[in-house]
Amino acid sequence: MGHPCHKDQLANLRRIEGQVRGVQGMVEEGKYCVDILNQIKALKNSLITVEGKILKTHLRECIKESLQGDDQFDTKIDEIMKIMKR
Amino acid sequence: MGHPCHKDQLANLRRIEGQVRGVQGMVEEGKYCVDILNQIKALKNSLITVEGKILKTHLRECIKESLQGDDQFDTKIDEIMKIMKR
Amino acid sequence: MGHPCHKDQLANLRRIEGQVRGVQGMVEEGKYCVDILNQIKALKNSLITVEGKILKTHLRECIKESLQGDDQFDTKIDEIMKIMKR
Amino acid sequence: MGHPCHKDQLANLRRIEGQVRGVQGMVEEGKYCVDILNQIKALKNSLITVEGKILKTHLRECIKESLQGDDQFDTKIDEIMKIMKR
Repeated sequence: MGHPCHKDQLANLRRIEGQVRGVQGMVEEGKYCVDILNQIKALKNSLITVEGKILKTHLRECIKESLQGDDQFDTKIDEIMKIMKR
Repeated sequence: MGHPCHKDQLANLRRIEGQVRGVQGMVEEGKYCVDILNQIKALKNSLITVEGKILKTHLRECIKESLQGDDQFDTKIDEIMKIMKR
Repeated sequence: MGHPCHKDQLANLRRIEGQVRGVQGMVEEGKYCVDILNQIKALKNSLITVEGKILKTHLRECIKESLQGDDQFDTKIDEIMKIMKR
Repeated sequence: MGHPCHKDQLANLRRIEGQVRGVQGMVEEGKYCVDILNQIKALKNSLITVEGKILKTHLRECIKESLQGDDQFDTKIDEIMKIMKR
């Protein structure tokens, strides 16, 4: 009952916010394009890590639950497939 | 001489910062995993758009320049290939 | 008991084989790079479709089974997370 | 004048064809989903390598040429940006 908690990802999300501000600073200072692009890449990777952790928790908790109580299992699987199609 | 300016991307980068804070809020409020994951996906897409625009400007300006003045063309191509390998 | 069958994907996999041969033909005939790259992109998309279908069947069948008989659920989740990290 | 040749990629493309047939075989023999998915992943990586090499040659040859003779440079950049958006 209720969704799993993802508060363990808050520190990572704050670091990501810092990375976005870092990229803004690089743009404002007129840094070299490739250096900016590398920072954006690092930022995307941080985001992918958080995404992966939330998805894993979701798979573990919500899928398990959907199998026990009700018959929403197929809906859950469809939701997951939709998320994974980027 | 000098890198191209990417200041036209600052508004987008500020919007991205807002999106990161939005995801933090959703996590704090205990929103449903799939809704959080969808927001992260939207955020990643915003980031990919900014990345694409900076890369396009880079290709247009820096590559052109590298062909005119010096012989750094191959180095530039290598840099670009490295960025594109995600 | 036993894995789910993916034979419904054989027709798609044969079409993909045809697409690979198509790309070989384009290279042999010296077609324009961008046209070849577009064909490779179409081929990658076909592959991603097959991958998605096999993954969906896997999620539906194997995960369900792992929850009923034994306690391999976490192993299954780890396997899936590894596959999804591309 | 004329496109660069990509015949050095034919051996790789033949290996990729073999990998597709390998996946077909695994499906026919009813191998475990995760093993099939791992093979598809290897196949996708082979494809990405070939794609990267063709793109690099294209960047090097066609872009250089477009800067020398005519003013198609912007069209070339647009083509490349479109390819890279996957």
